[in-house]
Amino acid sequence: MKGLALHIISIIIMIKAILLGHGSGGKMSHNLITDLFVKYFSNPVLQKQTDSALLKIDNQDIAFTTDSYVVDPVFFPGGNIGDLAICGTVNDLAVSGAKPLYISASFIIEEGFKLDELEEIVNSMTERAREANVLIVTGDTKVVNKGKCDKIFITTSGIGKLNKNYVPISTGKNIKIGDQLIINGTIADHGMAIMGAREGINLISDIQSDSAPLNHLIQEVLSNSNSVKFMRDVTRGGLATVLSEITKGKFFGIDIQEEKIPLNENVNGMCELLGFDPMFVANEGKVLIIVNKEDSNKILNIIRNNKYGKQAEIIGDVVSEHTGKSILKTQIGGSRIIDMLAGEQLPRIC
Amino acid sequence: MKGLALHIISIIIMIKAILLGHGSGGKMSHNLITDLFVKYFSNPVLQKQTDSALLKIDNQDIAFTTDSYVVDPVFFPGGNIGDLAICGTVNDLAVSGAKPLYISASFIIEEGFKLDELEEIVNSMTERAREANVLIVTGDTKVVNKGKCDKIFITTSGIGKLNKNYVPISTGKNIKIGDQLIINGTIADHGMAIMGAREGINLISDIQSDSAPLNHLIQEVLSNSNSVKFMRDVTRGGLATVLSEITKGKFFGIDIQEEKIPLNENVNGMCELLGFDPMFVANEGKVLIIVNKEDSNKILNIIRNNKYGKQAEIIGDVVSEHTGKSILKTQIGGSRIIDMLAGEQLPRIC
Repeated sequence: MKGLALHIISIIIMIKAILLGHGSGGKMSHNLITDLFVKYFSNPVLQKQTDSALLKIDNQDIAFTTDSYVVDPVFFPGGNIGDLAICGTVNDLAVSGAKPLYISASFIIEEGFKLDELEEIVNSMTERAREANVLIVTGDTKVVNKGKCDKIFITTSGIGKLNKNYVPISTGKNIKIGDQLIINGTIADHGMAIMGAREGINLISDIQSDSAPLNHLIQEVLSNSNSVKFMRDVTRGGLATVLSEITKGKFFGIDIQEEKIPLNENVNGMCELLGFDPMFVANEGKVLIIVNKEDSNKILNIIRNNKYGKQAEIIGDVVSEHTGKSILKTQIGGSRIIDMLAGEQLPRIC
Repeated sequence: MKGLALHIISIIIMIKAILLGHGSGGKMSHNLITDLFVKYFSNPVLQKQTDSALLKIDNQDIAFTTDSYVVDPVFFPGGNIGDLAICGTVNDLAVSGAKPLYISASFIIEEGFKLDELEEIVNSMTERAREANVLIVTGDTKVVNKGKCDKIFITTSGIGKLNKNYVPISTGKNIKIGDQLIINGTIADHGMAIMGAREGINLISDIQSDSAPLNHLIQEVLSNSNSVKFMRDVTRGGLATVLSEITKGKFFGIDIQEEKIPLNENVNGMCELLGFDPMFVANEGKVLIIVNKEDSNKILNIIRNNKYGKQAEIIGDVVSEHTGKSILKTQIGGSRIIDMLAGEQLPRIC
């Protein structure tokens, strides 16, 4: 019997399989990307692992990005899967310092999905594309038998015109000690809106997803200041994962003041109720911007003048201490290391 | 009871839903694209409904395309889902007269999918990308709970450098009476390879998918001749659907000689056995090229010199009769109108 048990255990270990955590945007995702995709597809563009690929066609610099959306439920307070797909792709291009221009949209739909729901999704995509001033120029539709996918999945890819001067903003190579970190508003809204919709809690909580196209906000910042050092949209894995990525292997550390992080009271309440740390919860309309300290208040004001930046705050500093690590200074005077999301917190959040 | 029955029927009619035929690449797909996507996303680029979107960034002309792959089974004789994804996107760009350069790859994976199978797929993608001389530069991975998708879906998008001189090749606006049609080899191999793999027939039939990147073959044709009028890769919906699309609403007709269409004997046998018309069965490495008659033999020889064109044939002519229709001249001396695929023949063929 003992021999059999050992045999079964060794079989389980041998069958290496994809787990939910591989799609979390956190540690396991990063390992899968590095150990498999970057290893095989190996090329200098991919190895940079920027939000968008930064490319050249003859003398034209472009940014290119893709994302699949599998959010459950498809409709939620503040948006639907179509909103996410357009906003997510627009934001990936915008944080690379590119002007988003063209979007492709590919649909995988479960047989029996209602046409009027598809129409509502397509209508949302149209409105978001118009708001972001991008064109949806090509697409594809595949239908699979009932039970072979869950309602609808959408993959959007985007092309943007890249300003070569903004390339260091993707890589963060110009970040210096003393720079400051700005976020354009409250965190964890999207994740808790999805969670609320799933559990039926949103009926009493009124939490809305923050899904929004941020390209105009970002353009206003870039065209009015030369002191932006880094930008990244804060999505799966939450603010913690982005902060952990920025400092990993670097010569600097980051201090974050917990009391400065904008957080809606009801989102905080739901996080406490359900045992989530808002630092790890997904957003869909948030960007983290690192700027020269001298310009930080000017940039904060530019952001606050945009409708998607009214609750923006300076939340922390680039410091010379604890190099390679981001530290959260808590409201009660403690400190803790901010790590990447390990495993999966909320599957199918986007 | 009669009232109840009528009530139920009216409810069924009211709930308009997505059917498998909406993803077939045939009539229902076309109606969905026109009635929903083109209507909402309305813009001049999309309205052209070319294989790739033909775009401009400043003075640079580019082609942009996307496709989702949901093929079942994931592995089949002659390839796997990764092969299809790279070849399909490369071919969509190439038939637009563009040089494929950059590919994005987005994965939706079912929890529990084996890592070594994923590695085999990624390895195939790498090999195909190398063969086609394109770079896979960006990507995304989402994981859904077991049972919420079927193993793995891949969406690839591609960007190519567009030669403006080749734009009429996408639209076919230069097609003239007397032009001839060439196909680069046997039809229906991919569809029957998938069907065989599903039904376990391939163990005795040895039918292989024709999945292949055709960009080099196409480039050889374009760089050695100015007389290419039209190109289209022949995929879902088969040769019949492409032929029907070309003539629809046009001032010319097309005559196709059935006995000239290359068809493997065992593929023909399986089609007869299972009741499929090979004209409607999917291909993944076939291109239909319309050329000036004076150059047709020269171009045929160029194609036959490429490893993916050895069985190429001139299969028909552009004629002044039966305008707006393609007619198949059968081997027994009959004629029949070639129509678009209606409904769905083989779901999840690509």
